[in-house]
Amino acid sequence: MNNILIIGAGLCGSLLALRMAQRGYQVTLVEKRPDLRKTTQDAGRSINLALSDRGLRGLRLAGVEEEAKKLCIPMNGRMIHDKAGNTFLSPYSGRNDEYINSISRPGLNMLLLDEAEKMTNVKIIFNQACEEVDLENASATFRDFNSKEETKITADVILATDGAGSVVRKNMFESRKFLFSFSQQWLSHGYKELEIPALPTAEKTSKNDGYRTYKNSLHIWPRGEDMLIALPNLDGSFTVTLFLPYENSDYCFANLTTPEMVNEYFNKEFPDVVEMIPNLSEEFFNNPTGPLGTVKCSPWNSFGKVLLLGDAAHAIVPFYGQGMNASFEDVVVFDEVLEKFNSDEKISWNTIFKEYEAVRKKDTDAIADLAVDNFHEMKEHTAMEIFQRKRKLETAFEAEFPQDYYSKYSLVTFKESITYSEAMKRGRAQDKAILNLLDDGKITEEMSLKEKLELVKKETETILHNDEVAFG
Amino acid sequence: MNNILIIGAGLCGSLLALRMAQRGYQVTLVEKRPDLRKTTQDAGRSINLALSDRGLRGLRLAGVEEEAKKLCIPMNGRMIHDKAGNTFLSPYSGRNDEYINSISRPGLNMLLLDEAEKMTNVKIIFNQACEEVDLENASATFRDFNSKEETKITADVILATDGAGSVVRKNMFESRKFLFSFSQQWLSHGYKELEIPALPTAEKTSKNDGYRTYKNSLHIWPRGEDMLIALPNLDGSFTVTLFLPYENSDYCFANLTTPEMVNEYFNKEFPDVVEMIPNLSEEFFNNPTGPLGTVKCSPWNSFGKVLLLGDAAHAIVPFYGQGMNASFEDVVVFDEVLEKFNSDEKISWNTIFKEYEAVRKKDTDAIADLAVDNFHEMKEHTAMEIFQRKRKLETAFEAEFPQDYYSKYSLVTFKESITYSEAMKRGRAQDKAILNLLDDGKITEEMSLKEKLELVKKETETILHNDEVAFG
Repeated sequence: MNNILIIGAGLCGSLLALRMAQRGYQVTLVEKRPDLRKTTQDAGRSINLALSDRGLRGLRLAGVEEEAKKLCIPMNGRMIHDKAGNTFLSPYSGRNDEYINSISRPGLNMLLLDEAEKMTNVKIIFNQACEEVDLENASATFRDFNSKEETKITADVILATDGAGSVVRKNMFESRKFLFSFSQQWLSHGYKELEIPALPTAEKTSKNDGYRTYKNSLHIWPRGEDMLIALPNLDGSFTVTLFLPYENSDYCFANLTTPEMVNEYFNKEFPDVVEMIPNLSEEFFNNPTGPLGTVKCSPWNSFGKVLLLGDAAHAIVPFYGQGMNASFEDVVVFDEVLEKFNSDEKISWNTIFKEYEAVRKKDTDAIADLAVDNFHEMKEHTAMEIFQRKRKLETAFEAEFPQDYYSKYSLVTFKESITYSEAMKRGRAQDKAILNLLDDGKITEEMSLKEKLELVKKETETILHNDEVAFG
Repeated sequence: MNNILIIGAGLCGSLLALRMAQRGYQVTLVEKRPDLRKTTQDAGRSINLALSDRGLRGLRLAGVEEEAKKLCIPMNGRMIHDKAGNTFLSPYSGRNDEYINSISRPGLNMLLLDEAEKMTNVKIIFNQACEEVDLENASATFRDFNSKEETKITADVILATDGAGSVVRKNMFESRKFLFSFSQQWLSHGYKELEIPALPTAEKTSKNDGYRTYKNSLHIWPRGEDMLIALPNLDGSFTVTLFLPYENSDYCFANLTTPEMVNEYFNKEFPDVVEMIPNLSEEFFNNPTGPLGTVKCSPWNSFGKVLLLGDAAHAIVPFYGQGMNASFEDVVVFDEVLEKFNSDEKISWNTIFKEYEAVRKKDTDAIADLAVDNFHEMKEHTAMEIFQRKRKLETAFEAEFPQDYYSKYSLVTFKESITYSEAMKRGRAQDKAILNLLDDGKITEEMSLKEKLELVKKETETILHNDEVAFG
């Protein structure tokens, strides 16, 4: 039982192929698109991503962490931009060694493909779009992009990492052979990518290293209903993403239909950005508008023959910067399950797949929910006074008592030793404790930071206990 | 804009047709199945349902409440059966005038069809299965069951009440013209209906009025993972429903494959039922096993031309006895929206449909979640000591202070003046308050009932306030 067919050679599929090959399986990795190492990239597709501890752990498992780090730009916090162009930095953690990284999606994908290809037991095939999967027999039909010819590939099992729009998942949904729970939830907002180009060489300043604004942060322009963010690239540019309602708002994709409207909107809401994007309205109309969706489903496997992983199993919105990290952590958890059963030849793939979902599903559900929460927090709360007081207090806790306190953000992003679901449970209880203690005036200026921390911890435990009694 | 096409003449569709006709619209009501007034019923389909205040309000709106009540059998509480055959009654409310009703689904459906048919502006067509809907132009294609011929019907708007497996909703899901959020969640349990027949005439006792067990209650045999319930019918029989895991359990549908296994299982878990069902294993194998699913979706309307209502918009599991009630309440809420805009000719159906969803969706989401919660409560909690103490306390509150206290169950079931979402929010806070006060030993024997009530109310307000501060 050693032939593994992996469908989809994106970030998750290529890391998984590498790791499964390292474990000794015979791997065939099939990708719909051309080899991205030999083509130019589309504009307007998400070209950088946030890489943090959970993702790094996956790369470390496969021995490619150090290579990947060469592609990283550390981001130490959120740089908040107000309407007047003032900025202030909100650190991601009070601990100096905790930060997230901006990394190029194609750059990392190429690295992983290169590493997978070095393995003699990995075969990578491009330009083959999966058309249909035989869910009971682990075979799949592909159509060649150029010749249009159909090929059928059969394996012992199929691991499907074909992304948020997974064809394999669609086959499971449409199959009437088992009950498939499925959910797709769209936000009322869409997104559009723009670019802040690098400074021309002549204008480079030593201060900004060729970047038009501060390099080592994730920039946010929170505006209540809408929001702009920007992440740095190695070449001095930033990839900017606008999150905007589709409709029913003064400014929305439905009514930003002319260059005048786009310029009016940006001049009013993001005046400091206008100076940094030379061809604003042109980019706006050239680049596509994408939807923001969450997908959950269960079971992830069919008949012990086909397993969904990564975005195919759990697509999430980008607001926690955890999409890629969750997919890489899938590879880690799947590897742990394989390791656990390694010595036992009698264990079926069905058992392995079920165990994997039993261990993992609650965590991918949690990060999906946290990401939607953070959408609201980023566009609304970052500008609200009580949330700023909370953030300030938590940053102080983390700086002064680095071993004793982790904010929800830190638990999710930096504390890979606990699961997403534990991070969510504890993080939400802490948030509730602090917000209520602040609201009730129970945290006073006279108290020492240590006393404040003890109070928050005590209140957090009470909240967790009371929830446990009521909801089990 | 007066031609309304209603697809699906089940409970919701027939009440909606009646009400829309009363409002003066020209209504065409199309049903896939034959006229149930002229055919015999399938065995093994849900043949009785719980009708309570929200449903009665819908029937009252259309002037058919009194007729419907003639079909009702009041159920005053849950009659819990333990393994030894002992029973105890857990009242639904401490107020004597609050009870739910067992009513025949086909009986009520026939009544509504009769009433709708009396209206000169209603045309009912049977045996026409909806095949496809033009979501932008309010037309639908039907296939005749007998002739197999296709017909196309065009209207000003389509109201789709074609149930949990809605073809119209499927058309919305598969349409790529708008973002459609959709969720289907299956429980790990399936259900199977059985029948406790009426006593033969010769054996009728005055005590039980021809019924083999107590008539005026909803019977429950809670067994942790599995559960049996029974509701009375007018003819002296009970419709029994078994809820059992599909697999991975000592007793589950996957392994109850022989008469011996079925009899062993029932004799062990439900010995008092075995005596009441003469042809147990025969019925077990003749009747189908059905899945238990929750469906949510949004938007409910497409292009202001087609609107989903009832189970088509929000299918729920049966454990709160609110499926039909929620669908009838849909008709009430939709009627209120029509009433609100009645004087304004300029209001489009699009505006009406959006307003209806804006008002209603949070409530159908709430009852869907409450119904899943109640699944766990019924099979597990009804047998747990702390939940029994809570229930006893709440029944005492309701009996002693009928104006001052409503349990979650009462808020959902009897208090139709507040919405499902308000009932959920307050009901959950009350449950949490009582369970924690009991767990902490803060409700003591020395306290008067009035003092206990005040404490519960105070704690409930604190919980609601703290949630509000933390989650808005």
